[in-house]
Amino acid sequence: MTPTITAFERSPDRGRGLARDMRVRWALEEVGQPYEVRLVSFQAMKEPAHLALHPFGQIPTYEEGDLVLFESGAIVFHIAESHAGLLPDDAHARARAVMWMFAALDTVEPPIFDRTLVMILERKEPWYEQRLHALEGSIRKRLGSLSTRLGDAEWLDGAFSAGDLLMVTVLRRLHGSGMLDEFPNLSAYVARGEARAAFKRAYAAQRAVFTAASTG
Amino acid sequence: MTPTITAFERSPDRGRGLARDMRVRWALEEVGQPYEVRLVSFQAMKEPAHLALHPFGQIPTYEEGDLVLFESGAIVFHIAESHAGLLPDDAHARARAVMWMFAALDTVEPPIFDRTLVMILERKEPWYEQRLHALEGSIRKRLGSLSTRLGDAEWLDGAFSAGDLLMVTVLRRLHGSGMLDEFPNLSAYVARGEARAAFKRAYAAQRAVFTAASTG
Repeated sequence: MTPTITAFERSPDRGRGLARDMRVRWALEEVGQPYEVRLVSFQAMKEPAHLALHPFGQIPTYEEGDLVLFESGAIVFHIAESHAGLLPDDAHARARAVMWMFAALDTVEPPIFDRTLVMILERKEPWYEQRLHALEGSIRKRLGSLSTRLGDAEWLDGAFSAGDLLMVTVLRRLHGSGMLDEFPNLSAYVARGEARAAFKRAYAAQRAVFTAASTG
Repeated sequence: MTPTITAFERSPDRGRGLARDMRVRWALEEVGQPYEVRLVSFQAMKEPAHLALHPFGQIPTYEEGDLVLFESGAIVFHIAESHAGLLPDDAHARARAVMWMFAALDTVEPPIFDRTLVMILERKEPWYEQRLHALEGSIRKRLGSLSTRLGDAEWLDGAFSAGDLLMVTVLRRLHGSGMLDEFPNLSAYVARGEARAAFKRAYAAQRAVFTAASTG
């Protein structure tokens, strides 16, 4: 059964693949699962039909027959559990891959996402510079820890997993900040993720939505 | 094999069960798995022996033979997957329980945790009131969505699951804020979680660490 996901009709990231549908598209491409996309406007996201799928009124959602999921991490996990390719078979290695999924979303992403929000919403506030500086300190601390752990490995724990997929999408938000460049092994890690054929297909697909909306 | 977890030698929450070892203790109690606890000081958390277990230098960690995990969400998931009682057998219901685990940690917890940090770290800043007000607005928005979805159900999706366990630990941080009281069904939901025998055993165990440290 072909699943349907939702994505922004007009993504605020201007097609840079930073919206959270990108993770789900990439996971689906990695496992070779075709999918449909339903685009939703910011207005429609707050209406009852969408809230029935996603109580917090966000994207992405995932519909597959009777199953309805929200939360990009949970959707990627469901895809990884339902197909081969994103979680190791060995039980301990699998538990560690899940650990990196949670680490990406709960430990590494919060200060990185907050930085984006602050740059959009708090630029005119009196505390802007100080807040940004504090957040960038938190981000560097996390990146330093991650860089040390990664060392010269290709991926976080053995073969590429759903943990790497989420971590790369989290770190990509730092493109243009200069902060990734301070950790060459993390820059190279992100580049390895972006070089995967599945990433490129997912990126092109979400990019096409932006291009169509811009010229439509 | 009895797993060993780590917890704060002196928790900054003064024994209120808000540190993230509480989630792991509660999950272990729910499934009836005995465990050992190794207490770590703030200094020891940043030293190589602990960083080998937890690259970000935090608690809790989980050691079970050769398996070493960090991230409370991942540890709770591992416990839930290894024992009966915290995830439904039905595949769709199980995917939704995992969805609520991610929703608790990725959508509901961030503004609640930030509020605690701001109240500790930014109380003397000129922007304190405005920042706190903005965060409380974000929290109320999330609580409103969650309250609507929960309705008059006992738990988020059928029987009590690891999703409820994490959500209750996230919402407990609002005790004393008055915000939970604005959503009577969420207050009652948290109270149902806290009334579980496994919660009480976990709470007493972490409380005993604080009491011993205070009188020691």
